[in-house]
Amino acid sequence: MSGSDGSWSTARRRNSSRTPATSAPRTTSPVASASRCGGDMPREVYHRDLAVLHERILALGSSTRRAVEESMLSLRAGDFEWSRRIDAEDERINQERLAIEERCIAVIATQQPVAGDLRRLASALFVTSELERIADHAVGIARLNLMMVKELSPRPLSYLPSMADRALAMFDDAIRAFDTDDVALARQVCLSDDDLDRLQDRVYADVIAAMRADAGVVERNTYLLWAAHNLERIGDRCTNIGERVVYTVTGESTDTKVSTF
Amino acid sequence: MSGSDGSWSTARRRNSSRTPATSAPRTTSPVASASRCGGDMPREVYHRDLAVLHERILALGSSTRRAVEESMLSLRAGDFEWSRRIDAEDERINQERLAIEERCIAVIATQQPVAGDLRRLASALFVTSELERIADHAVGIARLNLMMVKELSPRPLSYLPSMADRALAMFDDAIRAFDTDDVALARQVCLSDDDLDRLQDRVYADVIAAMRADAGVVERNTYLLWAAHNLERIGDRCTNIGERVVYTVTGESTDTKVSTF
Repeated sequence: MSGSDGSWSTARRRNSSRTPATSAPRTTSPVASASRCGGDMPREVYHRDLAVLHERILALGSSTRRAVEESMLSLRAGDFEWSRRIDAEDERINQERLAIEERCIAVIATQQPVAGDLRRLASALFVTSELERIADHAVGIARLNLMMVKELSPRPLSYLPSMADRALAMFDDAIRAFDTDDVALARQVCLSDDDLDRLQDRVYADVIAAMRADAGVVERNTYLLWAAHNLERIGDRCTNIGERVVYTVTGESTDTKVSTF
Repeated sequence: MSGSDGSWSTARRRNSSRTPATSAPRTTSPVASASRCGGDMPREVYHRDLAVLHERILALGSSTRRAVEESMLSLRAGDFEWSRRIDAEDERINQERLAIEERCIAVIATQQPVAGDLRRLASALFVTSELERIADHAVGIARLNLMMVKELSPRPLSYLPSMADRALAMFDDAIRAFDTDDVALARQVCLSDDDLDRLQDRVYADVIAAMRADAGVVERNTYLLWAAHNLERIGDRCTNIGERVVYTVTGESTDTKVSTF
């Protein structure tokens, strides 16, 4: 954790010992309570503010992860009702993203953070936006299911389930690296993205060959290509989070990944 | 321009009369000059700060627009060198996005903006991020060209050129609405997205039919589907910018668009 900002980390650790990182955000925050009681110094309130923000981002991460996992399960099961639910729940994720951003900006505006904390708050804004985008890719996968007809259950999906497993593992590592300032783990996330890209190549070869051989699967298989694309983008965004952790902790900057097509 | 914040708008207008909105950002900003000369009040410096930020976002918009336009032209011409150049130039757009974000956050942290300006700065952060994402979609289109073999020039592209024209018109309107707080124009952008979606449906039907009829075009035509998807996402992001303008000026909130698949 070299280079990490002590005050932010300390506040966060102390707080997270009371509350699981994946819990939903509190309706009454410790910040609000502290202000009402008047028993804390303003700096103490500020550190709790940062800790609550961090927890809210982790909770958003949990919702996002669930959306990714369930979107693939609903596609595999051909469960339209499930996919529709995932689509509908995305609005809550969008709203929470906006609320976190607003809170971040309010903290920046009112608390005049020191340089180290400012970099962390900028990073919090970045990670929040990437999480919301990952949830959008999950919605993309759920909507593909809604565009397909009923098939065998579980539906044959080439290497897509392997891609989903790999993407979720990257996601877990990226979130853990963000939570604990683990630079080594963050770098590992970036490296493992190549595996996901290779799996996508296999899906592509497999699915295109089937389309060439049988005109009847052309439309259906283009949907599988979209699903693979969504999973590949999720991997890219996990890499972006990993790179941001490296930058926040060490100051080293690397390229943000864009789609390979 | 009802509901707009006078001070920010005034500062911006005064500034933009001297400098075209689409020019590259200055290397020596008026903020820096004012500080050195010591001839201005801090509030005056702050307003110039906001105006310079606004100009930098418009300049980023110009770079992004060029990337979108040229990516489609390079795909149509089958010009690999051109596509590679667009891909390489994206790094400058990514860096400028990060620089603008950093500057926004620094202004928020040091100048303690009033509520109206804070909403504008949050909006500036949002628009900057959407512009960078639009440029990513342009890179996506340029990379598709690099994955295809040489063909007839101009390459037959179904309704993709019409989609590109429509997307660029939406982009211009979204940027103008952002620049001038034009709520009516911003709402118009959101409505016109349906036309783009309908054009995408036509590309889809056209391209899939050709794939069913001729196994030889299966792989090539999946690339056209990706290109259509990128253009559709550009339209979604223009809609997001339009919705953000409506929110910033009026306080009315609407959903942020995600992909339909």
